[in-house]
Amino acid sequence: MLKLYIGNKNYSSWSMRPWVLLKQSGIPFEEEMVRFDSFEADSQFKRALQALSPTGKVPLLVDGALAVWDTLAIAEYLAEAFPEKQLWPKDTKARAHARSACAEMHSGFSALRSACPMNIEASLPHIGALVLRDQPSVGADLRRLCSLWDEALSNHGGPCLYGDFSIADAYFAPVVMRIKTYALPVPATVQAYLGRVCALPGVKAWIDGALAEQDFLAFEEPYRLSR
Amino acid sequence: MLKLYIGNKNYSSWSMRPWVLLKQSGIPFEEEMVRFDSFEADSQFKRALQALSPTGKVPLLVDGALAVWDTLAIAEYLAEAFPEKQLWPKDTKARAHARSACAEMHSGFSALRSACPMNIEASLPHIGALVLRDQPSVGADLRRLCSLWDEALSNHGGPCLYGDFSIADAYFAPVVMRIKTYALPVPATVQAYLGRVCALPGVKAWIDGALAEQDFLAFEEPYRLSR
Ligand SMILES: N[C@@H](CCC(=O)N[C@@H](CS)C(=O)NCC(=O)O)C(=O)O
Ligand SMILES: N[C@@H](CCC(=O)N[C@@H](CS)C(=O)NCC(=O)O)C(=O)O
Repeated sequence: MLKLYIGNKNYSSWSMRPWVLLKQSGIPFEEEMVRFDSFEADSQFKRALQALSPTGKVPLLVDGALAVWDTLAIAEYLAEAFPEKQLWPKDTKARAHARSACAEMHSGFSALRSACPMNIEASLPHIGALVLRDQPSVGADLRRLCSLWDEALSNHGGPCLYGDFSIADAYFAPVVMRIKTYALPVPATVQAYLGRVCALPGVKAWIDGALAEQDFLAFEEPYRLSR
Repeated sequence: MLKLYIGNKNYSSWSMRPWVLLKQSGIPFEEEMVRFDSFEADSQFKRALQALSPTGKVPLLVDGALAVWDTLAIAEYLAEAFPEKQLWPKDTKARAHARSACAEMHSGFSALRSACPMNIEASLPHIGALVLRDQPSVGADLRRLCSLWDEALSNHGGPCLYGDFSIADAYFAPVVMRIKTYALPVPATVQAYLGRVCALPGVKAWIDGALAEQDFLAFEEPYRLSR
């Protein structure tokens, strides 16, 4: 049985991607949540992961003796292991586009990611407005996201980015959460896509898990003093 | 014919990866160098790429009507298009490890990358020593790199990370250049690997191209006033 190690569902944007991918695709897996007490060397988090992962980060996928330790590698591993699930789009061109989009996400959008950390249960529209007023690079990231999504949706006709659900939708799900928490303004076509993503059973299940956590980690909370 | 758009060979670490991958694997391609005059919206660089790439960055691979715009997606695209070249390791476990390593590189090692920008023709050992003295996170990145390489080399017996040359070696080639330019200290096994990487014909050809450029771009040069 595959085993996925994840962090707090409310905060761990990287963990959300492979979890949603597995859940939404109906691939059976066991999950283990390693709470983010801190990321210091002597934290429980680091001590729990140390023996399992060379980077000491989540997500981590363990398949028997094999540990796959980075989100994009986990996605490719699953795509190869479960060809019948068609986790990447079938068409070569769409697949190359989807992989480009995921790789861009994997190393990019850093302004948006650092100004608007994922915090599913929070509602911070005033922070979103201030961030957009004061940090033009966040607006640039948001515009790039919207144009990427718009292009994919209009080329493939929806409901997901490349037609049916694929790795790309799982990859952008944490950004969808951020746009909602910080109420970042997006065009109507994108707003409709956000709604469809949140309604995917795999995404909904993650959100429900995040809301149930009721944990508060100050080091993940630049904008709140308590829940 | 595949066409790869790249930046200055002396400076463009991202461009180096797919170029080395194509060259070392003997896949025919046309290259077009788009000089880094600046990354401002009105630069010649941005204007040249604007019509071709949604991000306006290099590398960009164009195959007929298809544009693949991010390094890791280019690597996966080539691995699928040229299965006979075996760009990823054949063994499932080694492939998952290699993909994890490349994905980690794709989004990580940011301390090392920002403190020690690629500059193939330069020799800056004093800067390397100062950086290591003053920025512990660069030392941590370097230790992680060495342990990743060491593990791969000892598991697979060399000469390359996963036995024969693969995407992983292309992915780390720009870091090999940085270690040399800044004379960062590494264990003997890693030093020997660096030597083998530099001797790969595909890497050597890129280095020769970089040395032939004789271009000086102040915005890529935090440590030199001239060549
Ligand atoms: N590139 C990695 C990033 C993983 C990552 O940064 N995960 C965070 C949690 S969302 C973590 O484990 N951080 C612990 C740390 O930085 O020490 C991936 O894609 O898996
Ligand atoms: N994640 C991208 C990064 C590409 C990248 O940042 N390329 C640099 C040159 S090495 C660039 O084109 N920069 C132009 C800019 O930032 O505007 C990839 O893997 O291709």
